[in-house]
Amino acid sequence: MSTTIEHSPADTAARIEAAGRAGRAAAKRLAVLTRADKDAALGALADALLAATDRIVAANDTDLQRGRESGMAEGLQDRLRLTPERVAAIADALRQLAALPDPVGDVVRGSTLANGLQLRQVRVPMGVVGMIYESRPNVTVDAAGLGLKSGNAMILRGGSAAAETNRVIVDVLRKALVEQGIPADAVQLLDGGHEDVDALITARGLVDLVIPRGSDRLIQAVVQGATVPVIETGVGNCHVYIDAAADPQRAVAIALNSKTHRPSVCNAAESLLVHRDVADAVLPALYDALTAAHVELHTDERASALAESGGTPYTPATDEDFATEYLDLQLSVAVVDDLDAAIAHIDRYGSGHTEVIVTEDRGAARRFVAEVDAAVVAVNASSRFTDGGEFGFGAEIGISTQKLHARGPMGLQELTSTKWIVEGDGQIRR
Amino acid sequence: MSTTIEHSPADTAARIEAAGRAGRAAAKRLAVLTRADKDAALGALADALLAATDRIVAANDTDLQRGRESGMAEGLQDRLRLTPERVAAIADALRQLAALPDPVGDVVRGSTLANGLQLRQVRVPMGVVGMIYESRPNVTVDAAGLGLKSGNAMILRGGSAAAETNRVIVDVLRKALVEQGIPADAVQLLDGGHEDVDALITARGLVDLVIPRGSDRLIQAVVQGATVPVIETGVGNCHVYIDAAADPQRAVAIALNSKTHRPSVCNAAESLLVHRDVADAVLPALYDALTAAHVELHTDERASALAESGGTPYTPATDEDFATEYLDLQLSVAVVDDLDAAIAHIDRYGSGHTEVIVTEDRGAARRFVAEVDAAVVAVNASSRFTDGGEFGFGAEIGISTQKLHARGPMGLQELTSTKWIVEGDGQIRR
Repeated sequence: MSTTIEHSPADTAARIEAAGRAGRAAAKRLAVLTRADKDAALGALADALLAATDRIVAANDTDLQRGRESGMAEGLQDRLRLTPERVAAIADALRQLAALPDPVGDVVRGSTLANGLQLRQVRVPMGVVGMIYESRPNVTVDAAGLGLKSGNAMILRGGSAAAETNRVIVDVLRKALVEQGIPADAVQLLDGGHEDVDALITARGLVDLVIPRGSDRLIQAVVQGATVPVIETGVGNCHVYIDAAADPQRAVAIALNSKTHRPSVCNAAESLLVHRDVADAVLPALYDALTAAHVELHTDERASALAESGGTPYTPATDEDFATEYLDLQLSVAVVDDLDAAIAHIDRYGSGHTEVIVTEDRGAARRFVAEVDAAVVAVNASSRFTDGGEFGFGAEIGISTQKLHARGPMGLQELTSTKWIVEGDGQIRR
Repeated sequence: MSTTIEHSPADTAARIEAAGRAGRAAAKRLAVLTRADKDAALGALADALLAATDRIVAANDTDLQRGRESGMAEGLQDRLRLTPERVAAIADALRQLAALPDPVGDVVRGSTLANGLQLRQVRVPMGVVGMIYESRPNVTVDAAGLGLKSGNAMILRGGSAAAETNRVIVDVLRKALVEQGIPADAVQLLDGGHEDVDALITARGLVDLVIPRGSDRLIQAVVQGATVPVIETGVGNCHVYIDAAADPQRAVAIALNSKTHRPSVCNAAESLLVHRDVADAVLPALYDALTAAHVELHTDERASALAESGGTPYTPATDEDFATEYLDLQLSVAVVDDLDAAIAHIDRYGSGHTEVIVTEDRGAARRFVAEVDAAVVAVNASSRFTDGGEFGFGAEIGISTQKLHARGPMGLQELTSTKWIVEGDGQIRR
């Protein structure tokens, strides 16, 4: 349903190369902007979005109508929908970015060598960052704002369902940038088909980093096809493990919150592990709470027996259940023999996002924290705290589940690289 | 000339998967070793290598003989050659590693949130690291030692020309590890053909990071083929720019040292840029010094004119010359109009490794440092200082020329990831 005309492959390569070069040129300017320049520009972008609220909402209506006509699910429609209030919230997020410290120029490490050379490792922008995401138009603005504040030129490729909305938003942002004396190409939008994505993720030398954000399928397609460095985000098959030494009330509250506070996001719990010694004491109350919150349970044999005897509805869990990120009011439940079994289960099924232990036992907490391999390991806290906003980053471009460069919530700092500066007075190697 | 029998593709995949799983299991042990454990093991590895000197040198002789028979260049033979003295030096490097601080467990950042959650970002090992390199057997030991100290299981794939040497070295290391109670699979060696490399760099989920080290061709092949995260190392088309405000004596010394101190390595200068205002004052003396050091000059028009009038031998530089990492006693030379032209030249031809400015002008130094996009930017110092040892890292696994995760010399810290630890007392999201 795209309004874009068909492009030949050579055409696509040329367009992406042009976008990369334009981004590179803009990045040179962005890299030397002061924090004051960038914060003023963020304010101007927010003003421009507010002033264009009617245009943005009208474009969004067009996207929504096309979505309804093609049978888009109501949940997806809601993620796509922009109201004047939502536009105001998005603009406000840009102002909040202006209030955050600028990571560029931070000195990470430094020393003076025996020969008198002065070394500093300083944060610098990445350069040109590609962002591939689905149909949430707020991501367009967030990414543009995070890019500007961190001094990176952004090449955005949003979902086609939000094409009109994104086109108007980026048009507004680019005009506002130019009025601030910043090159429009600090924010570019790709509006071609999938061939644009393929060209973007293989544009080595032109694009310094690509961040995919969205479904597992999208992320895996980018990771498999990219030759540009990628940061993998998002899939969260998160566990809550209720240890033998758990406080039962805390256990119920944390498990319930982790599952039901916002089931559709990556930091929601998808699987519950309960130590066999406390299964009798904890599971009946937890089953009641979960069932009252309309959570469907997929239970292993021992967890099923307790559901059975308490009259709780359940379906027997398959191996597939334990491997599934439901993103929905569903939860897999297993009773485990001990901490080792819990860690082994997480090792097998976890996606390295967020893993929670509920325990009052220092030794168990210490082992869980040391041995579980995940971006975030939490003791006696909901999995829902894995979030850039909650962590105090003020903004987040995604949650990395890989180990290279950034792991966990990614804020402004994670959008930077570093540069070593060596200052001497004529030193040579002997 | 490999002595390895042919493997089928399915066989290769199964072998690499087995290696990945064995590495993963070993990594779990390595991750929880104390610094004391690791340092003791490093000492034991050094002792074992020394005790096996005769075996190692004999295996190396076999490789060298095979190399000579197949016409290996003398330079390559020298890189491959191990003598008892070289074995001792390699063993000593392991002891030096033991003296370095352990990055694992370092707290990078931390805070207490308003809700009482205590956050810490802590360094943890990467997990399983693949290393693909050419025929320098010291890299085998360095990589094993850096891996052990940083808690990573290493899967090594050295050049086939060093196959026998590497086989004996890894055999010695593995036996010594087991005597220290550390799993042998902390260090594994792949000895199949190129199909092993292909399987290793696509073993997502089993291998956390691959580091290629060697020729541009090797590195590009890995980067293009990998789906596992990669850190690109090495290619250095490094420039020395002699500014209008350069001290002429310093300029000559730094340019000469950058080019001739060790021409075969990536931090050697390959290209010289001279501001037109000082070309007459600096180039004649520098040409004399370079020519005396047997450096062949590839000069642009203005640099040629000065060579001509001084009777210095030269060949006119092509565009290709400016793009070439000679790794040899050759140097391209251009006279530039100003600092902007120098930065633009570096922007076009540089590989993002090390760029040097020689100047006494603070403003020029400041602009060069801010605007040149490279892992290391140096003022009034030789390019040869870009080195983990010189930077005080004590050891180096390569020099990253990419912006993600690590940029510049990579020491122990660059072989780690981080993990967020969240400690609460029952916090849930409201």
